[in-house]
Amino acid sequence: MPKLLQVDFPFSGPFGAEMTKALADLAESITKEPGFIWKIWTENAAEKEAGGIYLFENEATAKAYLEMHSARLKELGVAEVRSRIYDVNADLSKVTNAKDLTNF
Amino acid sequence: MPKLLQVDFPFSGPFGAEMTKALADLAESITKEPGFIWKIWTENAAEKEAGGIYLFENEATAKAYLEMHSARLKELGVAEVRSRIYDVNADLSKVTNAKDLTNF
Repeated sequence: MPKLLQVDFPFSGPFGAEMTKALADLAESITKEPGFIWKIWTENAAEKEAGGIYLFENEATAKAYLEMHSARLKELGVAEVRSRIYDVNADLSKVTNAKDLTNF
Repeated sequence: MPKLLQVDFPFSGPFGAEMTKALADLAESITKEPGFIWKIWTENAAEKEAGGIYLFENEATAKAYLEMHSARLKELGVAEVRSRIYDVNADLSKVTNAKDLTNF
């Protein structure tokens, strides 16, 4: 069953177009992680926060990615990573316009 | 600019198919909220948590929905609602397979 991984953390930048430039290679590499389906990149320059909403094929791959990513963030100076792993209620999500969660 | 609203909270159920039945009318009503684009419904029966990832047309509509929804959850006995409002980095999200955030 696909699992949604929600991650957010304090982040001092770069944001916006600068973030895109700085993290394009990282983004490309994330698509090759085991079980990875998609990631929405989130950022809030005013609050100095960033994160991501991910879909993974199952709980094991979501957990393995979270562990690897948290260690990587720690090396980049991000000490506090908040995370949640959820099931998706696909039927209710379809009602609310998220028609095809595994391919959008 | 579209805003992503991330909401999660302690929830005692129902989960899964029972949640779908119980909240189908609520889901339908959410699609009519001002500025609403989509919602992914999240749930974790083991941790007794639930939430949602929403996209709204702008910050004002995301904030107005959050205020209304938090009050509604409080009436249902949910005291602690965690929330974040983010910009989406659309370019990086496209690299990671989230091709069309405003229509999926």
